[in-house]
Amino acid sequence: MDRALELAHESLFVTSPNPRVGCVLVGPDGRVIGTGRTQQAGGAHAEVMALRDAQAGGYVTQGATAYVTLEPCSHQGRTGPCCDALVAAGIARVVASIADPNPLVGGRGFERLRAAGISVEVGCGAEESRELNIGFFSRMIRKKPWVRLKAAISLDGFTAMPSGESQWITSEAARSDGHLWRARSCAVLTGVGTVLADNPKLNVRNIDTPRQPMVVVCDSQLRTPPEAALFDCDRRVLIYTASSDSRLAQRLKSRGAEVRRVDSTMRGRMDLRVVLADLAQEGVNELHVEAGAILNGSLLASGLVDELLMYVAPTLLGGGVGVARMPPLGRLSEAPRFDYVSALPVGGDVRLIARSHGANDF
Amino acid sequence: MDRALELAHESLFVTSPNPRVGCVLVGPDGRVIGTGRTQQAGGAHAEVMALRDAQAGGYVTQGATAYVTLEPCSHQGRTGPCCDALVAAGIARVVASIADPNPLVGGRGFERLRAAGISVEVGCGAEESRELNIGFFSRMIRKKPWVRLKAAISLDGFTAMPSGESQWITSEAARSDGHLWRARSCAVLTGVGTVLADNPKLNVRNIDTPRQPMVVVCDSQLRTPPEAALFDCDRRVLIYTASSDSRLAQRLKSRGAEVRRVDSTMRGRMDLRVVLADLAQEGVNELHVEAGAILNGSLLASGLVDELLMYVAPTLLGGGVGVARMPPLGRLSEAPRFDYVSALPVGGDVRLIARSHGANDF
Repeated sequence: MDRALELAHESLFVTSPNPRVGCVLVGPDGRVIGTGRTQQAGGAHAEVMALRDAQAGGYVTQGATAYVTLEPCSHQGRTGPCCDALVAAGIARVVASIADPNPLVGGRGFERLRAAGISVEVGCGAEESRELNIGFFSRMIRKKPWVRLKAAISLDGFTAMPSGESQWITSEAARSDGHLWRARSCAVLTGVGTVLADNPKLNVRNIDTPRQPMVVVCDSQLRTPPEAALFDCDRRVLIYTASSDSRLAQRLKSRGAEVRRVDSTMRGRMDLRVVLADLAQEGVNELHVEAGAILNGSLLASGLVDELLMYVAPTLLGGGVGVARMPPLGRLSEAPRFDYVSALPVGGDVRLIARSHGANDF
Repeated sequence: MDRALELAHESLFVTSPNPRVGCVLVGPDGRVIGTGRTQQAGGAHAEVMALRDAQAGGYVTQGATAYVTLEPCSHQGRTGPCCDALVAAGIARVVASIADPNPLVGGRGFERLRAAGISVEVGCGAEESRELNIGFFSRMIRKKPWVRLKAAISLDGFTAMPSGESQWITSEAARSDGHLWRARSCAVLTGVGTVLADNPKLNVRNIDTPRQPMVVVCDSQLRTPPEAALFDCDRRVLIYTASSDSRLAQRLKSRGAEVRRVDSTMRGRMDLRVVLADLAQEGVNELHVEAGAILNGSLLASGLVDELLMYVAPTLLGGGVGVARMPPLGRLSEAPRFDYVSALPVGGDVRLIARSHGANDF
């Protein structure tokens, strides 16, 4: 199963919006006869890849055991059900890490295998498989993406100088690490303030990846300039707005953007819960937030941030642009609480990862 | 030498303003015959303690080797020179970690031993011994204490709520850890703003220590209230001021404080370099700063902070009291740069230690 989980990890940047899954086939004599991992969406799943690998190697799959990091699918999607392929190949035993949270599968895969006389065991590697697919589990179960907020800050919590200068507070190593997290996400979320201030591309750079995450902009008044650098990359751009100005929307659509209207809340802001629910509908598992203090603050104050990814540079600016503006809290105990997952040096900086209290309880 | 360094570590809270030193005596047959560590100021040094230990055990010290983590002293202080004691005991060989930076010793200890026919080797454990005595080396060489700035902050860099509420951002474990750092310091420095806002005791609590660090208050206008809690503990209190109001000074002296006048700089602030130089004169090796944004900012902007000790709580406040107010920087490159020494979990928080670029180059 360790090898199957390794294979699943190798799919980190690839499978979106599908889960990252690995499969290892072991013959009756205990030899590995085939391995596979899930391909890009529309491509073959891990089980089918492993069966093909065994076939290509001239191995007989009859009586073999399949170690797979997620319940084999039982439904006809863009690819045929993996269960059928395993049955057809004469697999005798399936050892799976965890049940598929997809309501279209939800245990039916295991049932189908058992009905075909295949012995099924579940649980080995469950935690690691779920962790690797935290966004997929979130989308399937909570109907919202796993929201990871990334920020690069000084030790006194500033993301930029009072002048706005922010290139670069953190080291090149930290920025490269940040691109790895972008690459594994399905979408990168930012606010129009950041687009106007920094004109970022928000694409994945210097990493070998077969796909670029979609870019999502929260832009209540449609102030995104059609000449913004984020339109220069080949990938989906989705703009959520509270504006009904069709002329502005048309200008952005002509640059390839999709523009979606979201009702605003009483305070004139877009309802971010609606945005997240829509992104889940769009198949976004992990949402990578790289935004300014206003959008960060709105997400945090609404309790919508599941994970913080903070690169802390060993410097103090003494003033500048904060990481998150929030409505004043009455008491310290009202502040959003997180739990650290890790604290590691990255280049000359420290990377802190923390999860919202209870974010993982689904 | 490892054992000698261990013994030196055991003196961490004890020896101020003397260095932390350990000594192990090994007989000609390779057996350990005595160990010792430096006692409280005025008490015996490590070498003498080890010789006494050997004597108490009935061992002959003739021909023995002394492993000692600092050059044995050659001058008559409150105790007799250790060199003479080692010579008198017939020690054949001294293995020392590093030369004493004290200009009263400065290699003369080694000379004296060699002149008496003792073989001397220097260098084993040098880095660890110097590190353990970083404040003593700083005071002797730079004529200023090693300045360690401690702060407990949220992930967005706030030490307190906008309301001032700050008890407690960090966990009990982090606060206990902070007391260990207080305990090893010779003095705790704060500003009058903190005294007025939080009325802290600034003593060492819940740690078994034979001494309390002195408390030092920067109070340009002598606003420290005579009823402040910091006067309720039994230890020296030293107040630096730019005020010449003798009535205010007298009120504080009647509470046991020493009040010293320091000329103010052009901008009406006390010259902190003068304060630090005076503290070095007072025998302060490690200065532990627990202050507010104004004093922190002044120290940082003046390049006087050698080390940062930051406890970062996994929460964001979105606004509040900052860790350091500094005059606006023109460019990011002007911000004070530090290098991380460690990033470790402490309770539910993360403790970051960083050193100022080049602070260690003396």
